[in-house]
Amino acid sequence: MTRDFSRDHRWLSINTATVRAQWPLDRIIDECAARGIRAISPWRDQVAQVGIGRVAERLRATGVELSGYCRGGMFPASTPEGRRAALDDNRRAIDDAKTLAAPCLVLVVGGLPGASNGKPEHKDIAAARRDVHDGIAATLEHARAAGMPLAIEPLHPMYAADRACINTLEQALDLCDALDPRRSGSLGVAVDVYHVWWDPKLEAQIARAGRDRLLAFHVCDWLVPTRDLLNDRGMMGDGVIDLRKIRGWVEAAGYDGYSEVEIFSSLDWWQRPGGVVLDTCIARHRSAV
Amino acid sequence: MTRDFSRDHRWLSINTATVRAQWPLDRIIDECAARGIRAISPWRDQVAQVGIGRVAERLRATGVELSGYCRGGMFPASTPEGRRAALDDNRRAIDDAKTLAAPCLVLVVGGLPGASNGKPEHKDIAAARRDVHDGIAATLEHARAAGMPLAIEPLHPMYAADRACINTLEQALDLCDALDPRRSGSLGVAVDVYHVWWDPKLEAQIARAGRDRLLAFHVCDWLVPTRDLLNDRGMMGDGVIDLRKIRGWVEAAGYDGYSEVEIFSSLDWWQRPGGVVLDTCIARHRSAV
Repeated sequence: MTRDFSRDHRWLSINTATVRAQWPLDRIIDECAARGIRAISPWRDQVAQVGIGRVAERLRATGVELSGYCRGGMFPASTPEGRRAALDDNRRAIDDAKTLAAPCLVLVVGGLPGASNGKPEHKDIAAARRDVHDGIAATLEHARAAGMPLAIEPLHPMYAADRACINTLEQALDLCDALDPRRSGSLGVAVDVYHVWWDPKLEAQIARAGRDRLLAFHVCDWLVPTRDLLNDRGMMGDGVIDLRKIRGWVEAAGYDGYSEVEIFSSLDWWQRPGGVVLDTCIARHRSAV
Repeated sequence: MTRDFSRDHRWLSINTATVRAQWPLDRIIDECAARGIRAISPWRDQVAQVGIGRVAERLRATGVELSGYCRGGMFPASTPEGRRAALDDNRRAIDDAKTLAAPCLVLVVGGLPGASNGKPEHKDIAAARRDVHDGIAATLEHARAAGMPLAIEPLHPMYAADRACINTLEQALDLCDALDPRRSGSLGVAVDVYHVWWDPKLEAQIARAGRDRLLAFHVCDWLVPTRDLLNDRGMMGDGVIDLRKIRGWVEAAGYDGYSEVEIFSSLDWWQRPGGVVLDTCIARHRSAV
């Protein structure tokens, strides 16, 4: 039985990228708390801008908790030094996630080395995927020691070149099975509807994931037309994703955590007042998710 | 052993959308013939603009042949009348493909009804996929009678809402197996690298397709960054797709037909002189495909 979200917003979390254009992170925490939003998922650059001590203080003071921490990953590199630097960076991300008491560190695994700067260093996506496998394997030791689960986020195939070469839930779960065959709880997935809604195997793969692999659930909407590959995500209800159906599948598999709103929208929501955005997230969480 | 394309361009075909902004179809045929390009794949609206009689005449006069005909499909609808109209339209497409002696009719199967006009009539992608199944099943009878193979083209997942809800080669082949289990040759796939290059299962699914399901092979390139979801395809060699590797897989599976260049590029190639575009296609077919 899918949870009833229509009466309150206790299961709403705000990924802080949603209002990143409007406010710094400490203000975002206060604005969420003032609206009874119980959880956020912050980005590392937003944390760094304010200072992790100040962020931890605002979280303590308001009682706002984390639904995840964004992000680790970006493993592929064309040199051993590059791969080593990625591992170091992921260890720091785990430590920061621990400091902020995040339930998981979300991994955007990376694509072809250099591609995010428009200068891909090679075209071998299979090699990038091997780097991801090896990078997560190496990171997992530190994550386990720290008690910080890693959530692989499969990204939409349109980001395969420059952001993440893990592009379906099936592929992410294959990786989980390879690296954590005992389903220890230290490795799972973040299911973001924007990335996976199109997948004909989605329902089956969510069921396969099960409660112990489903570490996060992200919502927004797919607009038609979509005007920009990265920053034209829609508010829930404004696009074509059957959000309630997908949430039903996730909850049938045992997920009972937050529904995290993550909207990158340079053309629309980032241009509106932050309070309007948060109030709309609350309303749509009730009516459309 | 992958074919050697470096010495000539006998296996080059031009999808006529590549120079649609520059020339009408009769001129495209003449320009291709003048360069020793032996095949094209025209679009129905380009044929209609010039008249199918005139197109057939220019093909006969120049000896240029077809590597495919674009396109049938667009099956999903929200009413029985809409579904019937789609079937009628597909029958006409088959007849025109026959008139022009195309080796196959390419199917862009359609997405959510109304979405291509920015007005999606529902959000049930599973229902759209059922419409596609039923539409191809109904069309297949006419196609078989006409001796015109249907080539399902899986489109990139970023087109799932508005253009095609068949989004992986695996999904397309599942449909082929369901509707043509005997592999009669009347139903197969068009493999366009732009749509499938990211797929971690691509090599395996190409092998599964085999010679009798591989009806067409399309090339272009994926640019980083990609500035537009529809019309920012790259010239072969300018992006991140390992074209030779994918061609190797296709040929290892038995494909020995044309390599068809299909580039939608409002930002670049559609702004250059048509002769420059065709000459570049020839050069890149030799050096990058």
